Amino acid sequence: MPNRSLLNQLVDALRCLPGVGPKSAQRMAFHLLERDRDGGRHLARIMAEAMEKVQRCDRCRTLSEQALCSLCANPDRDQSLLCIIEHPSSMVAIEQATGYRGHYFVLGGRLSPLDGIGPGELGLDILEARLAEGRVKELILAVSSTMEGSATSQYIAGLAGDHRVLTTRIAHGVPLGGELEYVDGGTLAHAFAGRQEL
Amino acid sequence: MPNRSLLNQLVDALRCLPGVGPKSAQRMAFHLLERDRDGGRHLARIMAEAMEKVQRCDRCRTLSEQALCSLCANPDRDQSLLCIIEHPSSMVAIEQATGYRGHYFVLGGRLSPLDGIGPGELGLDILEARLAEGRVKELILAVSSTMEGSATSQYIAGLAGDHRVLTTRIAHGVPLGGELEYVDGGTLAHAFAGRQEL
Repeated sequence: MPNRSLLNQLVDALRCLPGVGPKSAQRMAFHLLERDRDGGRHLARIMAEAMEKVQRCDRCRTLSEQALCSLCANPDRDQSLLCIIEHPSSMVAIEQATGYRGHYFVLGGRLSPLDGIGPGELGLDILEARLAEGRVKELILAVSSTMEGSATSQYIAGLAGDHRVLTTRIAHGVPLGGELEYVDGGTLAHAFAGRQEL
Repeated sequence: MPNRSLLNQLVDALRCLPGVGPKSAQRMAFHLLERDRDGGRHLARIMAEAMEKVQRCDRCRTLSEQALCSLCANPDRDQSLLCIIEHPSSMVAIEQATGYRGHYFVLGGRLSPLDGIGPGELGLDILEARLAEGRVKELILAVSSTMEGSATSQYIAGLAGDHRVLTTRIAHGVPLGGELEYVDGGTLAHAFAGRQEL
């Protein structure tokens, strides 16, 4: 017998997927091998191809196969609006839920000097060059409101101020339809402090 | 832009995994592309290899890279015991939880004439050839106790009877530590009818 069976290697390899523990990994491996070999072959091929070919868009840093992502290459999008997000998944969520028609800029994280993540790691030099082009009129911050997220927002607002670009932040508050007793205290306090006249 | 982006193709392909819906598939794809390309490459390679090389053991029909699985090839296992299971995953569970040292035979399903699953599809001809060898003294049925599972057990018990092999079935009843009010009615009725003297 060779060192370790392919089945065990497959179970272990599946655990690199988020949310997949030993039991689910085993279930997935058996499912593919017993019932869906074609699906497994297809997944393996697409996964290998994606790992090599998907890179970052030169302009907005989202995941893209081309040097310029489809959104940046779209002439119909509003060049005067730029939304700052942490991850490409936020872009998917905003595109699906809102009518936003501007552009995006993906940080890929938050400023965290202790972890060695500074402005360069977040591509803020690319962002500054873009602001310097002078076409962006409003910068919309859609970064998470954690401590590091707020520091990142502050830093970016500073850059925008240098280029006289209006900076806004998406509203924080109680979710629509949310029962007050299930909302966390921080959000509730924030919503109270930010109350608006009806 | 090509027809569909590799990212979207990867999200779709991940949905062939059991228990993975659109949201988890998207989360998995972003996780691999943003944080674990090496893990993704490794998984893709192992998955492709497993889909091609993992076949069924000639003797017990479990998943195996070799013509004879490591368990069938192991001379230390007890040749006189044969446990009948539906899926290879049952083998993993029994090996982990019990001290069973005999052999296994994997059906790969249950008799279901309406779905075209007859004795041939479950490899019962191979099982019968094995019983005819005369080394198996006890056949242990560990098939699920659904209607189709029971019919399958009955059929196999018939085969074993023809070869004068003792047939047993693993015990059904209330799980250890199970609260009676959470046990389903069928199991409770079965446990009551099968009560044993202390």
